[in-house]
Amino acid sequence: MFLERLPGIGEKTANRLAFYLLRMPEQDLKEFGDNVSWLKSKTKYCKVCMNLTEEELCSICADEKRDKSIITVVETVLDILSFEQGGIYNGIYHVLHGKIDPLNSIGPDDIFIESLLKRLELNSKESHFVPRSGTTLGTKITEVILATNPDMEGEATAMYIKNKLKELTSSRVNELKITRLAYGLPMGANLEYADYGTLKKALEGRNNY
Amino acid sequence: MFLERLPGIGEKTANRLAFYLLRMPEQDLKEFGDNVSWLKSKTKYCKVCMNLTEEELCSICADEKRDKSIITVVETVLDILSFEQGGIYNGIYHVLHGKIDPLNSIGPDDIFIESLLKRLELNSKESHFVPRSGTTLGTKITEVILATNPDMEGEATAMYIKNKLKELTSSRVNELKITRLAYGLPMGANLEYADYGTLKKALEGRNNY
Repeated sequence: MFLERLPGIGEKTANRLAFYLLRMPEQDLKEFGDNVSWLKSKTKYCKVCMNLTEEELCSICADEKRDKSIITVVETVLDILSFEQGGIYNGIYHVLHGKIDPLNSIGPDDIFIESLLKRLELNSKESHFVPRSGTTLGTKITEVILATNPDMEGEATAMYIKNKLKELTSSRVNELKITRLAYGLPMGANLEYADYGTLKKALEGRNNY
Repeated sequence: MFLERLPGIGEKTANRLAFYLLRMPEQDLKEFGDNVSWLKSKTKYCKVCMNLTEEELCSICADEKRDKSIITVVETVLDILSFEQGGIYNGIYHVLHGKIDPLNSIGPDDIFIESLLKRLELNSKESHFVPRSGTTLGTKITEVILATNPDMEGEATAMYIKNKLKELTSSRVNELKITRLAYGLPMGANLEYADYGTLKKALEGRNNY
């Protein structure tokens, strides 16, 4: 059955879903089906940050209140949701849609690194009195936060992007800050159960208090 | 049965343990029992760091190769084991044997904060040409790492100790560095599943990369 092909849905759940759909009013079922069919054709990448959107610009890039000078680079759209749910971040994003992963033959060109570099290059050239042009948003970008995951592929991706950004900015005197999310003990953690790698990072990254 | 009184041991496990003990040779059983009886009378606090030991000084304080100028303040002896297992730390410790926890009526005087302050006070006064005196180890202490857990009580404890240390060191020109372990994403974490508090700390604590 087609429902079983969805991730995390086995035979039993598929049956339950099927019977639920069978009991739906004809009109609702039609709408539901259309939504599924159009899902992919309706959503596209935001032309600035590669977030998924139905418009030209995603709701975050289009938001007048967001700080356009800080870009957080994330692996997936779901990572954006994590940041947004907390309401802890007011800058904008760049979604890579993956990470450099040689074992699965995903190289730098298979994810949206090039578009990030282009975005920054255009941004540094453009006159900042003109509000918006092409794939930039008109505000001078001052910081790029590399928020790829703290695993091997995420690290490699962050490192690759950093080097590319350094190349890009070394030619001009550009005050672009490149930062990385902090590593260490998660909130509510217990030292007793902390793994070796995390404890090491927490110790190395200790701050004046 | 007495075995059931141990934490994490229910009726079934207690029975299994009892039958195991019953099958032990008389001599081994005697030795085992004696070890249990003497456990508390044989172990005492290290007179410097309050770690558990059978000697005057614990093996860490007595180790010539450890860097005596850095003290990591931990809540429990088990936290020391975490650090030691990784082999990531070469300084010495101070064990508080608890944390400030007003809800369970544990105040600053119920844990070994006073002895930490005394340790630092004596250290700052003492002549550093004399190798060892009283409860200090003769080396000038330059850094205190507050490694209490990142929960509410641990934070409160760290804050309390910090303030006390500042009081202590403000009167003299003492270059004591007070640091705290880094907070952030644990190794191998996934941003997608990171909790709000951890993500916030990781963002706030971001480092130049």
